[in-house]
Amino acid sequence: MGEKQIRFGIIGCAQIARKVSRAINLAVNSTLYAIGSRSIEKAKKFAIENGLSDSVKIYGSYDEVLDDPYVDAVCMPLPTSLHVQWAVSAAKKKKHLLLEKPTALDTADLDQILEACKSNGVQFMDGTMWVHHPRTAKIKEMLSDNELFGKLKSIHTTSTFYETDEFLENNIRVKPDLDALGALGDVGWYCIGAILWATNNQLPKTVTALPALTRNQAGVILACGCSFNWVGEEEEDEVATFYCSFLSNVSMDLSIYGTNGTIHVKDFIIPYQENSASFDYTSGAKFTELHLGWNVKPNKVEVASEVPQETVMVQDFARLVGNIKNHGGSPDDKWPEISRKIQLVMDAVNKSIDLGFKPVDL
Amino acid sequence: MGEKQIRFGIIGCAQIARKVSRAINLAVNSTLYAIGSRSIEKAKKFAIENGLSDSVKIYGSYDEVLDDPYVDAVCMPLPTSLHVQWAVSAAKKKKHLLLEKPTALDTADLDQILEACKSNGVQFMDGTMWVHHPRTAKIKEMLSDNELFGKLKSIHTTSTFYETDEFLENNIRVKPDLDALGALGDVGWYCIGAILWATNNQLPKTVTALPALTRNQAGVILACGCSFNWVGEEEEDEVATFYCSFLSNVSMDLSIYGTNGTIHVKDFIIPYQENSASFDYTSGAKFTELHLGWNVKPNKVEVASEVPQETVMVQDFARLVGNIKNHGGSPDDKWPEISRKIQLVMDAVNKSIDLGFKPVDL
Repeated sequence: MGEKQIRFGIIGCAQIARKVSRAINLAVNSTLYAIGSRSIEKAKKFAIENGLSDSVKIYGSYDEVLDDPYVDAVCMPLPTSLHVQWAVSAAKKKKHLLLEKPTALDTADLDQILEACKSNGVQFMDGTMWVHHPRTAKIKEMLSDNELFGKLKSIHTTSTFYETDEFLENNIRVKPDLDALGALGDVGWYCIGAILWATNNQLPKTVTALPALTRNQAGVILACGCSFNWVGEEEEDEVATFYCSFLSNVSMDLSIYGTNGTIHVKDFIIPYQENSASFDYTSGAKFTELHLGWNVKPNKVEVASEVPQETVMVQDFARLVGNIKNHGGSPDDKWPEISRKIQLVMDAVNKSIDLGFKPVDL
Repeated sequence: MGEKQIRFGIIGCAQIARKVSRAINLAVNSTLYAIGSRSIEKAKKFAIENGLSDSVKIYGSYDEVLDDPYVDAVCMPLPTSLHVQWAVSAAKKKKHLLLEKPTALDTADLDQILEACKSNGVQFMDGTMWVHHPRTAKIKEMLSDNELFGKLKSIHTTSTFYETDEFLENNIRVKPDLDALGALGDVGWYCIGAILWATNNQLPKTVTALPALTRNQAGVILACGCSFNWVGEEEEDEVATFYCSFLSNVSMDLSIYGTNGTIHVKDFIIPYQENSASFDYTSGAKFTELHLGWNVKPNKVEVASEVPQETVMVQDFARLVGNIKNHGGSPDDKWPEISRKIQLVMDAVNKSIDLGFKPVDL
């Protein structure tokens, strides 16, 4: 283990922890140092099933991970309702925090976490992986090109997958005491994040939930949608819509429409495959003579990825941690600010739903 | 000219008339018989510019076309505000009617036209071309496949193009006295039509305009959006959204999301090219182990078109006219019913906008 390697602890052995532990192992600047579960048996089982090295410490409680002085940073794939308690505890113990999304049940809760990170000088980042993919930077490059794309006019995004009846009754992501935000928190998080990302994190002026909503018997959202609007230059409105669901075939659409260009991504959250990802764009589209066709067809842009996007995320995070740990740097505020805006908008979506799909000003 | 050829008259020499006259000439069962403009000079100019045969009658008024006993059917690419007057007049003179979209300023106006068609036994069809493309039937086949697609959950569609400042001030499509419906009528018509088409013409339960709207100085809509919802089986909501605009790069997206499948079309109104068109679908999409990718990538389906979609439209229409004219058949009610539902929904969108983006029940 190199001196400069950031040592990670993972708290909680949910399904996503498997992906995260693999990502840490693949990251050049990170090492999986410890895992902790509520029982030592569960932690050992996780270690065996995922072929973890014998050098990884196995703990039978979350506290032991946080109390281990060699742990630099923790990943926390816990149910959302447990985030405040364990994230604040981690920050107080000076552990840098890579927190699973949704970051909290609401902004008030998230603020407790962010305040603890700030006052303890630790880096915060949420576990949204797609923003770290090199494709994402390539799309942003195009969005920022006034000639190719022009001014942003509208966005539509979806995040859906189809779940079994068993999941819809029993999974933690639909339990009011564990992940009360349901599909809005689990997959709507990505939609809201993508919309904010595309608008350079400008909060919308109003958030209006779509009058179409499905809940399970416990009242947890299984499917919902929302519209956002901004007032742009020249008093022209910009608009975004999203739809998220546990009840629809897998989709991860991100379509962005500008005055000069259009961008389509169909797998923005999890690319079809790990080593490369693509998106389509048209620019300067016009109709041919007599409107018989188009002057351009979509261009496909392929972007290679040397390592999986979750590994890029871990590397990006570990670099910031390393800067603090080894070079006396300060935490980068960019990441908590992004998470907080997503959470703020999510609160507004929830409020709009509660008000019967009325507009909520931000 | 074969006995069975349907003889068309075109009233008005707008840009779209050029496409329609070409379509009639390409149609196997149709002949362009006469054109009429408000001035004989304009009509002659149109005939020369479009290389019309010398046998085509050139009239300096609309009435002369309608009074010509050899004219079986008329196409009417006139500003929407003139539709009632001229469409009713045509129907009274027993001319079958292929009417440009939007069909009327509102349903009350359209009902006058449909009533005139019904009482005079003439066929009505609106000039929406894309529904006649063989690709459209292929997509519907897939939508109807319970295994491939499953139950419909959501739809998003766009119809946008980017217009010059000159257009936005002077074109008839943004003049309150000519095409008062603006972008909603001109391009939103396609979005509403596509949504109804995908739902087998089930009217939504509620229509709610999106709180994002751009008008020109005369108050005509240049960009707007809307959401629709239905209550499906098991009390689960289905939802659709659209966005239409004269202020955004050309886009014609139709994305349809079901429990088992997803369909994406990016050029649904005017295919990129005339001789074939495609769409993408995924079916049974799942994440691979550890959610590292997808088990399937989109399949592309290419559908060849022997003749342009507008020619298919003319042929479909002329076949119905021929059935009435030559075989004593009755007008097919399917087409006026489709148009009327689109117009009804468009009225509701307008009403929702007028009410400040409140839901409107249908």
